[in-house]
Amino acid sequence: MILEFPAVKRVSRATGLRVINQLGPIVGEALRRAGGVMVADASRENAPWETRDADILLTGPAKAWRDAPQTAPHGWPNRVRWVQVASSGVDGFPSWFFDVPSVTTGRGITADPIAEYVLAAILLDAKRLDVLAAHGPEEYRAPDAIAPLGTLGGKVIGIVGYGAIGQAVARRAQAFDMDILAWHRGGSQLPENARRAESLSALFAQSDIVVLALPLTAETQDIVNAPLLRHAKPGLHLINVARGGLVDQNALLGALDAGQVRFATLDVTAPEPLPAGHSFYNHPAIRLTPHVSWSDKHGRERLAELIVSNLQNLVVGRPLRNLFDRDRGY
Amino acid sequence: MILEFPAVKRVSRATGLRVINQLGPIVGEALRRAGGVMVADASRENAPWETRDADILLTGPAKAWRDAPQTAPHGWPNRVRWVQVASSGVDGFPSWFFDVPSVTTGRGITADPIAEYVLAAILLDAKRLDVLAAHGPEEYRAPDAIAPLGTLGGKVIGIVGYGAIGQAVARRAQAFDMDILAWHRGGSQLPENARRAESLSALFAQSDIVVLALPLTAETQDIVNAPLLRHAKPGLHLINVARGGLVDQNALLGALDAGQVRFATLDVTAPEPLPAGHSFYNHPAIRLTPHVSWSDKHGRERLAELIVSNLQNLVVGRPLRNLFDRDRGY
Repeated sequence: MILEFPAVKRVSRATGLRVINQLGPIVGEALRRAGGVMVADASRENAPWETRDADILLTGPAKAWRDAPQTAPHGWPNRVRWVQVASSGVDGFPSWFFDVPSVTTGRGITADPIAEYVLAAILLDAKRLDVLAAHGPEEYRAPDAIAPLGTLGGKVIGIVGYGAIGQAVARRAQAFDMDILAWHRGGSQLPENARRAESLSALFAQSDIVVLALPLTAETQDIVNAPLLRHAKPGLHLINVARGGLVDQNALLGALDAGQVRFATLDVTAPEPLPAGHSFYNHPAIRLTPHVSWSDKHGRERLAELIVSNLQNLVVGRPLRNLFDRDRGY
Repeated sequence: MILEFPAVKRVSRATGLRVINQLGPIVGEALRRAGGVMVADASRENAPWETRDADILLTGPAKAWRDAPQTAPHGWPNRVRWVQVASSGVDGFPSWFFDVPSVTTGRGITADPIAEYVLAAILLDAKRLDVLAAHGPEEYRAPDAIAPLGTLGGKVIGIVGYGAIGQAVARRAQAFDMDILAWHRGGSQLPENARRAESLSALFAQSDIVVLALPLTAETQDIVNAPLLRHAKPGLHLINVARGGLVDQNALLGALDAGQVRFATLDVTAPEPLPAGHSFYNHPAIRLTPHVSWSDKHGRERLAELIVSNLQNLVVGRPLRNLFDRDRGY
């Protein structure tokens, strides 16, 4: 395996810190190159919460913690002062998991591939390249006989959650001359290319496409529910690249069957996978993909770079990047 | 039919000019609103070259002229001083067709939908949303079991022909952080976001994706041939949204079968459609669509706006937009 870590610099001094790496060989290799710490690659015999004498725990995804005890194991977090999670979302970890001085996430690492997935979903819906593929001369019809293809210019894209993923979607959507409407909780200014939606229902009422790109927390669970979907603009294409739990799935089925929502592209569901025979699997108005939008040949290398950079931050006493905020829940 | 022509203004004075409109009711309606001319909608009984006493002919596509005589009909072009063609390309019209004081084309009208088609083709190839669609829980595999999805950032897109379509592709590709390489005959400066390829073979050698967006002329016929394809960078995705005649189709088949080219998305072929049983129809490395990339619900309205604007140019003596250049052949 040949790895390149253009952004990996050596850690400025030996620290004696012990790291348990549950994130595989690419992260391990980056840490060894960076130096300054002792790295133990996780053994499959150990549960992920068995941190022994480690100071730093690199872990994820949440489903590896599915069998974690309901209450914290004795002594948790022991000596651990920093936990880095691979994923952007931290839903699915037990609540005691966060009783650590610092937890950081993979926020932003997968924003670009996820934004590409979103544009792929929008363009495939508009251009129908799968359906239009011609396998014989009889599939060439007069232009008038083919419903005109959809176009993106001037269409309104409503982005729910305007973090790294939402902004990465917006930047690409802007190049297609789409009109960007954003809903987010943060008080920060939106960039010039986006307008702020007055409310989530206003966003649904005005958008041709709605992209869900917000974390799953107690507040956002089932945020896309039947009352909200009744506001949907006719023809809406709903895209969920965040978490299945954001959507009341029965309400979505009802809205699709009633024609309140035209189409849904879902990379996430609750649970994952859905049980065999679930109506989502073969619904004509749903494109379901098996939680792949984050996928990126170089994603693990970028995570490794983030981790080494955060290790250096820890060593020199700078704030860590991507700190989990307990009050916000992400 | 409710039409809106925000850009249609009334022609500044009555001209007495007679127009034959072969481009359908949307164009006819725009001209009647603009005023200043007498409009006759073409009758199906007349061949498109029967211009009678018209001063202006609005016509297209080239295939409506398929049965035109080899030599100009007696008296051609009679009183016609301006011919507007609906399409961007003017290949396929008989050579005598151009013996008219001014011929203008639809160049640029379809650049946005075609650029959207190109990005749809690139993203569908990278993200595989058609193949990955899940129809049961067994299609959820561990991430390691799924080949990582492709990403666009840093990939080189080679654009052959850098007119309205090529530039519309480049603007969108830039938002995906792609590296833009362009080959075009014009001497004009490339915009900042693109580098000029030293040669067509250099472009093929350096590009992960090649987009053909140039006119078909005597010089560009079969420009993508076996010697050029031998330069292709491994893994190349070739996209043709221009004309089938640009590609030596047997050479492309050979290059796909030899693995010199990984995949081709073809919206155009020569002829169109290809005969039943042609190898392109069910080739695993070809996505063939029936010449639909230009399709756009509002395309005819934009063409109507161009025509009215050119009519006003003619009336006040300004140069016409989109003039066909006989020396260049487009």
